[in-house]
Amino acid sequence: MSEKLVGACVIGQSGGPTAVINASAYGAISAALEAEEITQVLGADHGITGVLADKLYDMGLEDPQELAYLKNTPASELGSCRYKLADPEVDDTDYKRILEVFKKHNVRYFFYNGGNDSMDTCDKISRFMSKSGWDCRVMGIPKTIDNDLWGTDHCPGFASAAKYIATSAMEVSKDGRVYPTGQVTIMEIMGRHAGWLAASAALATHFGAGPDLVYLPEVDFDMDAFLADVERIYNEKKSCLVAVSEGLHFADGTFVSQAKTSATDGFGHAQLGGLASRLGEMVKERTGAKVRAIELSLLQRCGAHLASKTDVDEAELAGRVAVQSAVAGETGKMVAFERAADEKGGYVCKTILLPLTSVANAEKKVPLEWINPEHNGVTQDFIDYVLPLIQGQPERPTECSLPRYARLKKIQA
Amino acid sequence: MSEKLVGACVIGQSGGPTAVINASAYGAISAALEAEEITQVLGADHGITGVLADKLYDMGLEDPQELAYLKNTPASELGSCRYKLADPEVDDTDYKRILEVFKKHNVRYFFYNGGNDSMDTCDKISRFMSKSGWDCRVMGIPKTIDNDLWGTDHCPGFASAAKYIATSAMEVSKDGRVYPTGQVTIMEIMGRHAGWLAASAALATHFGAGPDLVYLPEVDFDMDAFLADVERIYNEKKSCLVAVSEGLHFADGTFVSQAKTSATDGFGHAQLGGLASRLGEMVKERTGAKVRAIELSLLQRCGAHLASKTDVDEAELAGRVAVQSAVAGETGKMVAFERAADEKGGYVCKTILLPLTSVANAEKKVPLEWINPEHNGVTQDFIDYVLPLIQGQPERPTECSLPRYARLKKIQA
Repeated sequence: MSEKLVGACVIGQSGGPTAVINASAYGAISAALEAEEITQVLGADHGITGVLADKLYDMGLEDPQELAYLKNTPASELGSCRYKLADPEVDDTDYKRILEVFKKHNVRYFFYNGGNDSMDTCDKISRFMSKSGWDCRVMGIPKTIDNDLWGTDHCPGFASAAKYIATSAMEVSKDGRVYPTGQVTIMEIMGRHAGWLAASAALATHFGAGPDLVYLPEVDFDMDAFLADVERIYNEKKSCLVAVSEGLHFADGTFVSQAKTSATDGFGHAQLGGLASRLGEMVKERTGAKVRAIELSLLQRCGAHLASKTDVDEAELAGRVAVQSAVAGETGKMVAFERAADEKGGYVCKTILLPLTSVANAEKKVPLEWINPEHNGVTQDFIDYVLPLIQGQPERPTECSLPRYARLKKIQA
Repeated sequence: MSEKLVGACVIGQSGGPTAVINASAYGAISAALEAEEITQVLGADHGITGVLADKLYDMGLEDPQELAYLKNTPASELGSCRYKLADPEVDDTDYKRILEVFKKHNVRYFFYNGGNDSMDTCDKISRFMSKSGWDCRVMGIPKTIDNDLWGTDHCPGFASAAKYIATSAMEVSKDGRVYPTGQVTIMEIMGRHAGWLAASAALATHFGAGPDLVYLPEVDFDMDAFLADVERIYNEKKSCLVAVSEGLHFADGTFVSQAKTSATDGFGHAQLGGLASRLGEMVKERTGAKVRAIELSLLQRCGAHLASKTDVDEAELAGRVAVQSAVAGETGKMVAFERAADEKGGYVCKTILLPLTSVANAEKKVPLEWINPEHNGVTQDFIDYVLPLIQGQPERPTECSLPRYARLKKIQA
């Protein structure tokens, strides 16, 4: 055990929201409120930008019942950001400001919940604190619907999005096949470089009503093969449902969706969209079929009403373990998941800690051997991987049959 | 009581599918299987086109448990169609063929489940049968997410779509406000001429997280007022969520979405879409805000996992009442709903019968007095109207945490 470190903690949320990032916040906040060493639990308004602005909320002043509602509240209740910290060797202004705010509130623990880019932020802060001699333990809590964080079996947020996508794909599969006149339906699913989410649409097919074809960004997109696939199935069945990942790209690396590539988000990534419509137009030209293009857009990442209980529980666990590990002396690590099995071979999730340096900016993609040889579907290995993750329906508080979300007071510290 | 009429019945589904049209089919099929007078229960493949093709399935040969699963299976399990029957005075070919098929199977009862256009089909068949001397009782079962059928308090299918829209609007409202950099989000909702569905997004606002602005097709769309509204709210709150009905039109009657007006469906209606993107571009130009355009598309009408129990139960009831009324001697009528109150003033739904001739092709719109004077929102009267309809979560059978739908054998008679 390390020396006992007493002080306040800051919990921040970063990057794209998910259905369960607030469950991780709840896990971290409640563990921090329970920890003797932690004197004050602060929630950062809009992640690291809230630290820079010294806009921190005292979580100890919230109603415990409202905090518990965080478990089923989608998006980032504290607010998120996409703020890229400069290389501290080049410009350490932000880091000095963070240190100043940390000193002001005696912040000795910093928990940051996010994806690849956020783990990079976390890592940079961890190293700066260490270098500047301010004893502050920094822990990353994983989060991303994209499931592309390196070193963890899966990421909190992925499974609930996967369940939303699979359920929606089943419903759309039913709806898209009702007319004798036929229809081609194209569902566009999030995932810039990794196809975990688009692949999850195949769960619907596994249970009898889902996409006929699934295309992932792990392999180069072949437009001719795609059009031939759709035409063949449409001619056979008079209907065809296709799931495509927004990040589909040609062999030369250019995105199949060129629609919005001029716009970029705060991290310099191209903002994608419009792929389904674009492919739909090409299919219509080729087959003459009626085409429906559906973009799942934000719906897939905030669909808390379809969250996986496994995912909610694991997200809460990740937050809790981050706090407990830091209190026990850990720093500069990210909580990760390892898949294990119980005596009967059933799914068990264990937490491990990975050095932030090994996680930051690395990407985990769908293994090529889980993609079929035709590059238009996934194998049973993928189904076996994802199925345990989407299990269970969490408790879902409602008010007049609509979701009841957390209502925080957000009192500034 | 009328004379006892013994023979087979045909049940058909028509028009756009809903989350609960199969619940009506279940109500009709199970009531017909129970009725002594009905010798065989036939399901028409793809509505009236299945009758024309003599493609009729024997529902008595289905597993009762699978039939029960129809209650939570979205879309049209028997298949739907958008087939417009000719005016029998001009061309009676189809009618003669229908009579031929009815005579072949001794069909004495015809139940047709659909919206405006389908009630017109129903009415024409009813009058032709009557004229040709074939004793056949014809009943319409209402269905439309659009809620625009004349003479009924509301339509089966509407409430489940409304609940899906309100829940999704709550989730998107949470997601669309997470970044300090701000965002304008535009949700495009179905509804060609009636704004019942878009208005339902306001339920989310009523419960604390929903659209700031709602625009309905009942009033002319004013682009300048719209842009000023969005800009004002975006400047105030750094975020703005807008719900728009796909059928928004200018004062001269042209649709704000011109995107796909060249394509028409089988009934000659323009196929709309792309409105949210179009408005989004204008908002971006005006405000410089980051804009997300979300089209709920098919998702809103097939979202059975979010169905209203009230809606499912009433849909089943409508199917059952149609069969029971026909057996009791009624014909040429549509089952409709009348809103009543119990002793405590609670919501009660009663069924009534309306002449098909009075329903066919008439449209019911959102009353103008339920739209606010600024034409960018709805009044409490609308909320009071819709809230009882979305209540309750029906039983939702699952298989590995994904929906378990009906699997019919569909054995041809």
